[in-house]
Amino acid sequence: MERKNDIIQAAKIVAQYCHRTPVLTSTILNDMAGCQLFFKCENFQKMGAFKMRGAVHALSHLSATEKMKGVITHSSGNFAQALSLSAKLMEISATIVMPSNAPKVKMEAVKYYGGRIIISGPSPQEREQKLAEVQANGGQTFIHPSNQLNVILGNATSCYELLEDHPDLNAVVSPIGGGGLGAGTTLSAHYFGENCSTYGAEPAGADDAYHSLRDNKIYLSKSPDTIADGLRTNLGDINFPILKKYLSEILLVTDDEIRAAMKLIFQYLKIVIEPSSATVLAAILKNKSRFSGQKVGLIISGGNVDLGNLGNLFS
Amino acid sequence: MERKNDIIQAAKIVAQYCHRTPVLTSTILNDMAGCQLFFKCENFQKMGAFKMRGAVHALSHLSATEKMKGVITHSSGNFAQALSLSAKLMEISATIVMPSNAPKVKMEAVKYYGGRIIISGPSPQEREQKLAEVQANGGQTFIHPSNQLNVILGNATSCYELLEDHPDLNAVVSPIGGGGLGAGTTLSAHYFGENCSTYGAEPAGADDAYHSLRDNKIYLSKSPDTIADGLRTNLGDINFPILKKYLSEILLVTDDEIRAAMKLIFQYLKIVIEPSSATVLAAILKNKSRFSGQKVGLIISGGNVDLGNLGNLFS
Repeated sequence: MERKNDIIQAAKIVAQYCHRTPVLTSTILNDMAGCQLFFKCENFQKMGAFKMRGAVHALSHLSATEKMKGVITHSSGNFAQALSLSAKLMEISATIVMPSNAPKVKMEAVKYYGGRIIISGPSPQEREQKLAEVQANGGQTFIHPSNQLNVILGNATSCYELLEDHPDLNAVVSPIGGGGLGAGTTLSAHYFGENCSTYGAEPAGADDAYHSLRDNKIYLSKSPDTIADGLRTNLGDINFPILKKYLSEILLVTDDEIRAAMKLIFQYLKIVIEPSSATVLAAILKNKSRFSGQKVGLIISGGNVDLGNLGNLFS
Repeated sequence: MERKNDIIQAAKIVAQYCHRTPVLTSTILNDMAGCQLFFKCENFQKMGAFKMRGAVHALSHLSATEKMKGVITHSSGNFAQALSLSAKLMEISATIVMPSNAPKVKMEAVKYYGGRIIISGPSPQEREQKLAEVQANGGQTFIHPSNQLNVILGNATSCYELLEDHPDLNAVVSPIGGGGLGAGTTLSAHYFGENCSTYGAEPAGADDAYHSLRDNKIYLSKSPDTIADGLRTNLGDINFPILKKYLSEILLVTDDEIRAAMKLIFQYLKIVIEPSSATVLAAILKNKSRFSGQKVGLIISGGNVDLGNLGNLFS
């Protein structure tokens, strides 16, 4: 019961710094899916992804001394931007260790949001070594993109808000990558839903979580191959037990199914989403009988897609 | 003053059949433009465009006999879908005359919304002749896509709602194609704004309205050449005098400027829009000093873009 209250408190903190994102619906997509779909649109969140929620909530729990010394993370994706912007809003300094081969556009986004970038070598080992070096000097608190309880509880506020708006959902589907969003979603569904199941949607080309849950041990994501670039990361020891306990099942989808679902969302919801977010609709369309006639929530995780690549995705 | 009341009544009718579309904002886009932008998102309207408003309002004014005999129009674009869906919602039959070379996807959309399609030859003359033939037999009422007062008054409800939400806008910018949206927008800005100017945004490759207003006579749009496919049409004798009387100015934008603005809207607002809708942001970014520090409304007319073509638009 403690975590239930933690999420309620997290929602209050997140509401101070983040948008309450809208829930969209579409008659045509309902007809196609054979159930009622409720899209919780984190693509409209500040900096374009749910990651803001976890970052803001984690920062809010730092002590005054920790806040003074600042925070540090390694990420070349959405969490780098989320931590930079959250820290700026809270007047905390944020250091982001990024590999030398990170896309220039991502580095510029981090700078725009006020993050201080430290360049490391391209390998994970070099990245972690660089982080340890910087941290040894500055004493910054490390914030993990997905495997930290306060990050997970912050992420949980998206599904919490969705269930505030639609308390009678029968199921919620979340993308599964590092596990931070999935864990937060399933906690909220457990505590605040009325018998609401949670499903994870995972790319078949990065199915480490599927196998990890089946065998009850964390497998690393070896050479993941999927267009859902946000879902190539590994589960962690904090989020894995939560997923293990509360998640009903992981549904695998192919890249072709992700592309088709992404196109449907662009076409009928008129919103821009990243491929990772399309996994949830793909999973529902692939498993229609399971959701038939139900009310189903979909966590649309973000909208930071490379626009130059849309031609390939939709061709 | 009569039209003021007409628009208030139109808004009540439109509210029964259409979505109240959201108004979106973006701090980053405000920074870029040097003014506060309020995007009225008709891309989220039913069937994906503002045209629903005019169609619904025009149909609501038909007599019982006219409703029984049904309606007819010629269009291969958004208005064909809007009239089909509006008529279905009101249990009226809609006949759409479409040229034999109309894209298959547009024909399918009309069928999906319940419209009856009559195929004509590809030329405007053949289209009008076919329409006259059908009408002579069935007695359907002709509804023009943009040059009919009740269509214009229906279109006016978008800006009316925008000003209900943000009464203190200094200016509103609308795309200018056939003139039906521009005329409706400028009427609402005149009657319901507090000193709110209206600007039209028009592609330089289809600048017939620009020249028509300058010379006070309607020029036809000769061989228009622009990616804004919804804005290649001609002004009419009903909307032209309204534009002439109330519009402040038409701002021309190039296709490159339209593409750049469209990309910014996808990237920062995370919404899918058609090229025609991007003209308004393009016009503001091209004329920053004119809007500096102001509160500016933008009518985002629709989101029915060919997704297969996004690769070309954003490359």
